Amino acid sequence: MKVGILGATGYTGIELIRILSKHANAKISYLSSKHFESQLISEVYPGLSGFCDEILEGDDFNKVVAICDIIFSTLPHELTFEIGKMVIDAGKKLIDLGPAFRFDDFNVFKKWYGSNGDIEYDKFNKVYGLTELNRKKIKNAQIVGNPGCYPTSVILALAPVLKNRVVVDKNIIIDSKSGVSGAGHEPKFSNLYSECNENTKPYNVAQHRHIPEIEQELSKIMEQDVKVVFTPHLVPMTRGILSTIYCNLESGITLKDVYDLYQEFYKNDYFIKILKPGKYPSTKSVTGSNFCQIGFEIDERTNTLIILSAIDNLMKGASGQAVQNMNLMFELPENKGLDIIRIFP
Amino acid sequence: MKVGILGATGYTGIELIRILSKHANAKISYLSSKHFESQLISEVYPGLSGFCDEILEGDDFNKVVAICDIIFSTLPHELTFEIGKMVIDAGKKLIDLGPAFRFDDFNVFKKWYGSNGDIEYDKFNKVYGLTELNRKKIKNAQIVGNPGCYPTSVILALAPVLKNRVVVDKNIIIDSKSGVSGAGHEPKFSNLYSECNENTKPYNVAQHRHIPEIEQELSKIMEQDVKVVFTPHLVPMTRGILSTIYCNLESGITLKDVYDLYQEFYKNDYFIKILKPGKYPSTKSVTGSNFCQIGFEIDERTNTLIILSAIDNLMKGASGQAVQNMNLMFELPENKGLDIIRIFP
Amino acid sequence: MKVGILGATGYTGIELIRILSKHANAKISYLSSKHFESQLISEVYPGLSGFCDEILEGDDFNKVVAICDIIFSTLPHELTFEIGKMVIDAGKKLIDLGPAFRFDDFNVFKKWYGSNGDIEYDKFNKVYGLTELNRKKIKNAQIVGNPGCYPTSVILALAPVLKNRVVVDKNIIIDSKSGVSGAGHEPKFSNLYSECNENTKPYNVAQHRHIPEIEQELSKIMEQDVKVVFTPHLVPMTRGILSTIYCNLESGITLKDVYDLYQEFYKNDYFIKILKPGKYPSTKSVTGSNFCQIGFEIDERTNTLIILSAIDNLMKGASGQAVQNMNLMFELPENKGLDIIRIFP
Amino acid sequence: MKVGILGATGYTGIELIRILSKHANAKISYLSSKHFESQLISEVYPGLSGFCDEILEGDDFNKVVAICDIIFSTLPHELTFEIGKMVIDAGKKLIDLGPAFRFDDFNVFKKWYGSNGDIEYDKFNKVYGLTELNRKKIKNAQIVGNPGCYPTSVILALAPVLKNRVVVDKNIIIDSKSGVSGAGHEPKFSNLYSECNENTKPYNVAQHRHIPEIEQELSKIMEQDVKVVFTPHLVPMTRGILSTIYCNLESGITLKDVYDLYQEFYKNDYFIKILKPGKYPSTKSVTGSNFCQIGFEIDERTNTLIILSAIDNLMKGASGQAVQNMNLMFELPENKGLDIIRIFP
Repeated sequence: MKVGILGATGYTGIELIRILSKHANAKISYLSSKHFESQLISEVYPGLSGFCDEILEGDDFNKVVAICDIIFSTLPHELTFEIGKMVIDAGKKLIDLGPAFRFDDFNVFKKWYGSNGDIEYDKFNKVYGLTELNRKKIKNAQIVGNPGCYPTSVILALAPVLKNRVVVDKNIIIDSKSGVSGAGHEPKFSNLYSECNENTKPYNVAQHRHIPEIEQELSKIMEQDVKVVFTPHLVPMTRGILSTIYCNLESGITLKDVYDLYQEFYKNDYFIKILKPGKYPSTKSVTGSNFCQIGFEIDERTNTLIILSAIDNLMKGASGQAVQNMNLMFELPENKGLDIIRIFP
Repeated sequence: MKVGILGATGYTGIELIRILSKHANAKISYLSSKHFESQLISEVYPGLSGFCDEILEGDDFNKVVAICDIIFSTLPHELTFEIGKMVIDAGKKLIDLGPAFRFDDFNVFKKWYGSNGDIEYDKFNKVYGLTELNRKKIKNAQIVGNPGCYPTSVILALAPVLKNRVVVDKNIIIDSKSGVSGAGHEPKFSNLYSECNENTKPYNVAQHRHIPEIEQELSKIMEQDVKVVFTPHLVPMTRGILSTIYCNLESGITLKDVYDLYQEFYKNDYFIKILKPGKYPSTKSVTGSNFCQIGFEIDERTNTLIILSAIDNLMKGASGQAVQNMNLMFELPENKGLDIIRIFP
Repeated sequence: MKVGILGATGYTGIELIRILSKHANAKISYLSSKHFESQLISEVYPGLSGFCDEILEGDDFNKVVAICDIIFSTLPHELTFEIGKMVIDAGKKLIDLGPAFRFDDFNVFKKWYGSNGDIEYDKFNKVYGLTELNRKKIKNAQIVGNPGCYPTSVILALAPVLKNRVVVDKNIIIDSKSGVSGAGHEPKFSNLYSECNENTKPYNVAQHRHIPEIEQELSKIMEQDVKVVFTPHLVPMTRGILSTIYCNLESGITLKDVYDLYQEFYKNDYFIKILKPGKYPSTKSVTGSNFCQIGFEIDERTNTLIILSAIDNLMKGASGQAVQNMNLMFELPENKGLDIIRIFP
Repeated sequence: MKVGILGATGYTGIELIRILSKHANAKISYLSSKHFESQLISEVYPGLSGFCDEILEGDDFNKVVAICDIIFSTLPHELTFEIGKMVIDAGKKLIDLGPAFRFDDFNVFKKWYGSNGDIEYDKFNKVYGLTELNRKKIKNAQIVGNPGCYPTSVILALAPVLKNRVVVDKNIIIDSKSGVSGAGHEPKFSNLYSECNENTKPYNVAQHRHIPEIEQELSKIMEQDVKVVFTPHLVPMTRGILSTIYCNLESGITLKDVYDLYQEFYKNDYFIKILKPGKYPSTKSVTGSNFCQIGFEIDERTNTLIILSAIDNLMKGASGQAVQNMNLMFELPENKGLDIIRIFP
């Protein structure tokens, strides 16, 4: 099947190339780049030489839709809506790694992303692409709104306890730590090596755009309105997200109960690794892989459940999950091309 | 005044030397080291050459007590109790950077630190050395239990709102991120470069020994029993602690109210920097200095106050605060020898 | 084919497991560990869970030789000589990642490695395992002395110009920069995070044990006695070696000549990437992969050829090359199980 | 004395502020910034709060010359020539941290820096500001061309052996490793955290603009034309330069001879630290300080002298040396305000 990537030279773009170059069923057939148009991708990223030597083209939507069976987009949302319409019309498929298609309610998108225009948002045959929770819908969708990196780490960690109502819906605190690649490939002061190295810093406290995405999905899981407090932090590493989540536990629940509940909930999910009591996730245990590690602890003194989850933000948090969704959409085994062991140390 | 450092080659020991070598009123007169006995400190740490070229001796308690006016100890608690008694008897002063003298109730110490023996704990003329909160007692103490690094970052951040009861005493969540120097100078697998680099990992979740210390002090401030949830994390940097603290706000409090309250509370404290609304602390803003940056945000959707504090774990979190206490104990200006600007980038 | 790894929990050991777990022709059948005997490898390294869940055994040489077709050893040389004899007798195969079998002359080994004993060194059917240069011999060897990380980066970089005698044999200067994983998994002061982070430091200047290995192979290539100056440095990263090599160029050679010569020399070598003039290698371009990038520049003002080479020290510099050699020894395609794209960023 | 800094928000600018805020004889009286004009410096860099709270102005040359006794400039060379003229006319002093005033021959400057215009270069009363080698001239200069970071680390390391002619003038190889802050504060792809972290990469091989500066000064020291091969590398750390220098030693020279020669040469230089044989410099040993560590080794097998030097690129390599020069120009002790111990770990 022929694959196109719009915005191929950002970090999620080249991670898609890393995966898809070795995917037996995919053939990379179109790559676009604003910054590096008309260069070879393997000149911009010499480590891809021999694996992917395509030329980088401009954003020619007609061409990519004509050529490709499936398109991955990392473009700004205005352009994504445009390519979305063309994909629908042409009967092709689109996985968007941006926020454009993640929402049920267009007003929520407009409020948090400052968009003014109006579009027929409901007419897109689209689905929120958190694979483990939405498999059936993803299989039949034309457009997948691939989840944000933080929401992936958070929703996977909370789904079992919210679904089973072993925690209270109040006071859910999410404290996330992300590597700097999550801030993207754009040159700006705050992403410079000398600013980030040896530095831990919070940002967008209680205001991050991933909040509505998290709350939308958690509310559906719990079948009631869920609110969360969310603080993202940048830590000095390239890849990885660790989310530490605090909830008030219903009374009488033991650590063993929680462990069993997670094991049961994710028993058929290849990419979810539930850690035994006493073991905690770490970002380095998943670097370069599509796995999500989940562990927990109960603070009995306060009856608080502390859930810990680790993903590679560019893999399960972006490009890896996108390919996982592609596999579903084309009826391939979910881990096809994704059965990659973490790199350690 | 003559100063001795027991355990001078660990990270807090050499940080004491960095400060005290340039302190106009202090003369380093005794240094001990188990690992490097009989070497020059400036051979072990060549960057100290010209500033401190003392020989490293063994732990000769009689000698150090005889020679020195004030002793800093980074030794294990069994040895610290011993030197504590000798200091009391000799009418000298001791600042202990370990946990031995931080507790009001010896049973709490024994429970969390696994100590079996029994000592006349109450007979020590000792005080918990969080400078900003205990100035008067520190001035008159013979022994100071210098606070732990996490407790310093947490108690300073919470004191104003607990004292003024603008937050509820329930559901206080503390999520701390520490550089690796906090784990000490001992060679072990978990401190190796290749294990820590590119890795964020929680540890001792809800079980860290700094919990009783935090709760003891917060309970005194609020004049009621306070319990906290505390999760420490290691992030890949050498120095710095960022603590992110979540509390339920009493109703009707604005961000401006909170800011004013902190400004007022710390108006006479040289080392506390309250950030204006919209600005957040970062560890790099305090690296190498004795300052504590405190900022905050209110999540109005959940009425949660998020307090953020940043310190250098080896300075305000250990050796810097120890010297600040020494200054108090000898009636010197509190910032004597500590008026050091952070290093950036 | 059944594979054993002696010393499986060091960094080269777990890198072997990362590769071999996904190698279609290999079945990991024996793992040993001194530190973690009787634990599951996936408990020690949770990221291996699902890929390799073997139990770690002791160093039972009889058992491993009986069970396995090929054994990888990361043990100290005394033990390696022992297992070497047993492998020869049993008609099995051994790839040693230590120095024991890298030398033509046992006296050289004894001089640089401080060994006292005497063994019948010449009776081992062994070969130096720099794959690209020794393919035929490796195919027929029972024992491969897998090259050191620095020698791999250096010999590959110098072979074409020495073989073709376009550089003078005098004044060959090698300045190498290595990530800290090259220093191994043992806990010692010099490998601690806080010692290595934000630090660049030379070590073993002009005295490193890789010197005789480099000179032995370069001398054979040039068919005359070659001496080199070699300075290794530790830089604050986990993986990667960059070697910068300076030689006096014979007169009349252009950058184009040099490029053509390298292209021709390595035209059939999958894992060697010759960069076009104007492009330089970087360690991140090969992280996690078995590739060696080679680039160069001529300083016309001094007629100096500067050769630059980059490898991942744990892959082409150790475990990757070991598997490449295994593939040769078992008549498999050389890149079987090794066709891994670098991870970036 | 009143001090102005033109270009105060780059890394060398804020490092000047770090030093000068605590300098007893200096009063910061003018700060300019293109990016952050009209903000407070302590808003842009909150760690300066309380130490320097000046407003950032535009580049008003008339004003800064009128107000200040001495001006530090980090501006592009066109602007520096302009301010240079005004400083000369007004009888004030200027220390330029860029390349504009480092050269004896304007044609060399024009060739390497691509400048087209023509100016009366010889009319400036200027001197190359490598303090240890040019003290007398610096004392009497109006304009100091403050040395580049690499040249400082290299010239200090080579001066004793070239002056005393114990090395041959041919085949001087300089291999330097720099932290990323040396690449400046401008946002560009190559300075991004995710590009630099876990990466070692050479750049401008044999073409770096610091070459003519190094050769100019070495030729004067040796009183003959000296050519060098110079390769700079970026390593993943914020601060520090380590230069590894290779020279052919004249025969009969021992390591002891070399050590004695350096000790003698620098016996009156506070900031130069000669390490005993067997000890090597490391960047972390000088971080945040104005010291230069120099060590060496002889490779007897090839009669090569390997000289190693470490500086903090922002201190002795830029702002520290600039203040050292200022002290000289105003007849203050050379280490006034610079007697800062390295920060470790």
